[in-house]
Amino acid sequence: MNELTIWTLDWVPEMPRGFVRDLRLRWACEEAGLPYTVRTIAFDDRAANHLDRQPFGQVPYLDDGGLKLFESGAGLLHLARKSEVLMPRDPAGEAETLQWTIAALNSVEMVSAPWWFLDVTGAKENGLTGWLTQRLDHIERELSQREWLAAGRFTVADLLMADVLRVDRLRAFNDRPATEAYVTRVTARPAFRKALADQLAHFEAADKARAKV
Amino acid sequence: MNELTIWTLDWVPEMPRGFVRDLRLRWACEEAGLPYTVRTIAFDDRAANHLDRQPFGQVPYLDDGGLKLFESGAGLLHLARKSEVLMPRDPAGEAETLQWTIAALNSVEMVSAPWWFLDVTGAKENGLTGWLTQRLDHIERELSQREWLAAGRFTVADLLMADVLRVDRLRAFNDRPATEAYVTRVTARPAFRKALADQLAHFEAADKARAKV
Repeated sequence: MNELTIWTLDWVPEMPRGFVRDLRLRWACEEAGLPYTVRTIAFDDRAANHLDRQPFGQVPYLDDGGLKLFESGAGLLHLARKSEVLMPRDPAGEAETLQWTIAALNSVEMVSAPWWFLDVTGAKENGLTGWLTQRLDHIERELSQREWLAAGRFTVADLLMADVLRVDRLRAFNDRPATEAYVTRVTARPAFRKALADQLAHFEAADKARAKV
Repeated sequence: MNELTIWTLDWVPEMPRGFVRDLRLRWACEEAGLPYTVRTIAFDDRAANHLDRQPFGQVPYLDDGGLKLFESGAGLLHLARKSEVLMPRDPAGEAETLQWTIAALNSVEMVSAPWWFLDVTGAKENGLTGWLTQRLDHIERELSQREWLAAGRFTVADLLMADVLRVDRLRAFNDRPATEAYVTRVTARPAFRKALADQLAHFEAADKARAKV
């Protein structure tokens, strides 16, 4: 098997810790039992110093034995083809997993991330609130009907949707009990706890290394 | 081969015509030479009357011989696996196509669609302008270096990125000559012209049918 390398930043400030998207790839590898190593690029000048590897100056990117992918969503779909734990192999299960993975990226996060950004940066009015409300209501409707999004079982679509929805400001946005139970359930998985602990430890170690300089 | 059915709305108002996302699936089928039929659901009460088939009350969804997918991005990736015209079959070409397809959905459209929405609805301040500028500048940098996003040739990633970028307000946003040349080049493809003409004709026919009632 090719060696998997997840590239992330060597250090980030306090706020994004626990939410840097290398976590998505760590989590998927933990779920699937795929061995991986984590390597880093410098936080300083990140917007300029790795545009050749990631055109938006962001992390993560995945190196699979020389095959390189940026975009966490693309990394997840790539990993999902390596393990049935992440995506069923029957055509219907695969199609359901694919559609809900894209739904997390392009129907939910497409509204929730910009809404969050406007909220955090203190926009006087948040013109995305109505749109966000609609999308979260639709997700609440789905999750009140079943435990998992696709194929009647945990898939990479749940990993991604739960990661999109676990943001504090979204969890505090209206009362959506099925969604809250879903986020709690998915993020209680040992693979998530491990990935989260590893990311936090990674950045804490970087603090210590910086303090020594 | 299974029969492909693209589901869209029976009618829409003037503004979204030419941009309803069934166009993405029509375009992909035209590029790949995949036969398809178009079927419709009612525009009236669309937000409630097909939530069982599309959880956000939207179009399109794709029916591939009984296998159903919503999310235009998922439909495109599904179609791409049927035809090398849309996605190369070598692992590196496939990975590049996948990452740029997801980049169009989750790095560009995630900012451009909410920015567009705030702009169209007349938000007093558009807090997404800085973020959009960054993303469009990064895309401009990529497109000034090469003709196609992935694998040195047209792929489904170009289809999607060009569809995201061809929106009038984005084309008028700053001077980005490589992006403008790219959008012009990709939307000059006969498959796009056919898909666009077919969507416009579909909604014009619906006007006439409505006028008779």
